[in-house]
Amino acid sequence: MKLQIYSNRLSQPCRAIIIFCKLHGIEFEEINVSVAKGQQFTPEYKVINPMGKLPAIVHGSYKLFESHAILIYLACSFPGVADHWYPPDIQKRAKIHSVLDWHHSNLRQGEVGYVQNRTLKPILGGKLDPEAAVNEKLLSKSLAKIENLWLKRDGKFLLGNFRPLIAYLSLVCEIMQLQLIPESYRNRILIPYKKVPQWVEDTRNTTNPYFDESHFFILELKGVLTVDSLVGINKETSLV
Amino acid sequence: MKLQIYSNRLSQPCRAIIIFCKLHGIEFEEINVSVAKGQQFTPEYKVINPMGKLPAIVHGSYKLFESHAILIYLACSFPGVADHWYPPDIQKRAKIHSVLDWHHSNLRQGEVGYVQNRTLKPILGGKLDPEAAVNEKLLSKSLAKIENLWLKRDGKFLLGNFRPLIAYLSLVCEIMQLQLIPESYRNRILIPYKKVPQWVEDTRNTTNPYFDESHFFILELKGVLTVDSLVGINKETSLV
Repeated sequence: MKLQIYSNRLSQPCRAIIIFCKLHGIEFEEINVSVAKGQQFTPEYKVINPMGKLPAIVHGSYKLFESHAILIYLACSFPGVADHWYPPDIQKRAKIHSVLDWHHSNLRQGEVGYVQNRTLKPILGGKLDPEAAVNEKLLSKSLAKIENLWLKRDGKFLLGNFRPLIAYLSLVCEIMQLQLIPESYRNRILIPYKKVPQWVEDTRNTTNPYFDESHFFILELKGVLTVDSLVGINKETSLV
Repeated sequence: MKLQIYSNRLSQPCRAIIIFCKLHGIEFEEINVSVAKGQQFTPEYKVINPMGKLPAIVHGSYKLFESHAILIYLACSFPGVADHWYPPDIQKRAKIHSVLDWHHSNLRQGEVGYVQNRTLKPILGGKLDPEAAVNEKLLSKSLAKIENLWLKRDGKFLLGNFRPLIAYLSLVCEIMQLQLIPESYRNRILIPYKKVPQWVEDTRNTTNPYFDESHFFILELKGVLTVDSLVGINKETSLV
């Protein structure tokens, strides 16, 4: 009953799951779904995830989508995952749920909208959205909350905890998506923050070599993103 | 150590929590935070929830925000909550997490944007957002997913389960927010669906009298929504 992960390394929630599995020795088959080819909308994939989004997992006869739900499921289902990733204590666990819930309508919504507007939409033939400024504001506000609220203590990680939680992978992989936008935009977004980049680097170091390996795609694409590069890289890696 | 709930009955996630507590005999003090007066942005409230949003709870020295995290915390912390609300089985629990995660970026994002554009923004002096059509599309797509995916079986509720889950309260209270928009808009949104309104009604019947009691505010406001009515009703109920 080997775990199957339907994934694309361009997707930040997919990378969070891949890193988590590799880090904990969870065996899995990675099935690449090409977003450039729209494979997430095919009838075959919709049997796996009727929402037509990535990631999704199949574990025996059990199917699950939504990356936060998947991370929690993996942390609870596989042996060898240290408690600090998803503590059994109800109050600590609730704090992780709270961060993950916040993520959806804040860091993620702002970042996805901003990156799509600044990079992916023009490449894929879409128009620049007038909402780009709204997304940038939400993204910056979210980064400020991470810097000034969750990283305010001297601990390396959120919630005053020195050991990583599943929420770090979701949030840090989201921030790494900014590597896809032109450097001048990225600098403008990130320059006000000192603790956020350090926390990204700490999380990277804690989860390497899997962190770098999972981000290979987007770091290769940095600055050379085109439709051809998206389709080409998917082919070259032979993940399909 | 009586539970304190910082709430406003205009807020759909607040109503979900209030209904859950009343249904399970969880004693609480309800502290109204007037959104019309912007009380969620005051320094006093930001000590409770630094995000400046509703709801939030204080349980002894423990503070928590984000309604889904709160519902899970309550289901796990208080005795007398039947297992079906948040089953201990890892796979069933993961399905609930999946629905709640999906909710953030789909039903909630579409509904909040649409209702704000159609009702609250004009009243509060804001301009109609050109994104209203995008929000309507996301809202309709989300309702279609509930109708055709989660309610497709003959079970009264999502996931083929006849007994309610915490996710029902979040989703149904969100749909109830459509009571705030003019009837013609509401009808246009809801008319394609048969199972969704029945499911809302079933959830209402299962959780009454608390469901109706919690929705009293928005049903009173229906069709007469003005800034004065918002401030007036907050005053009259003396919840502040």
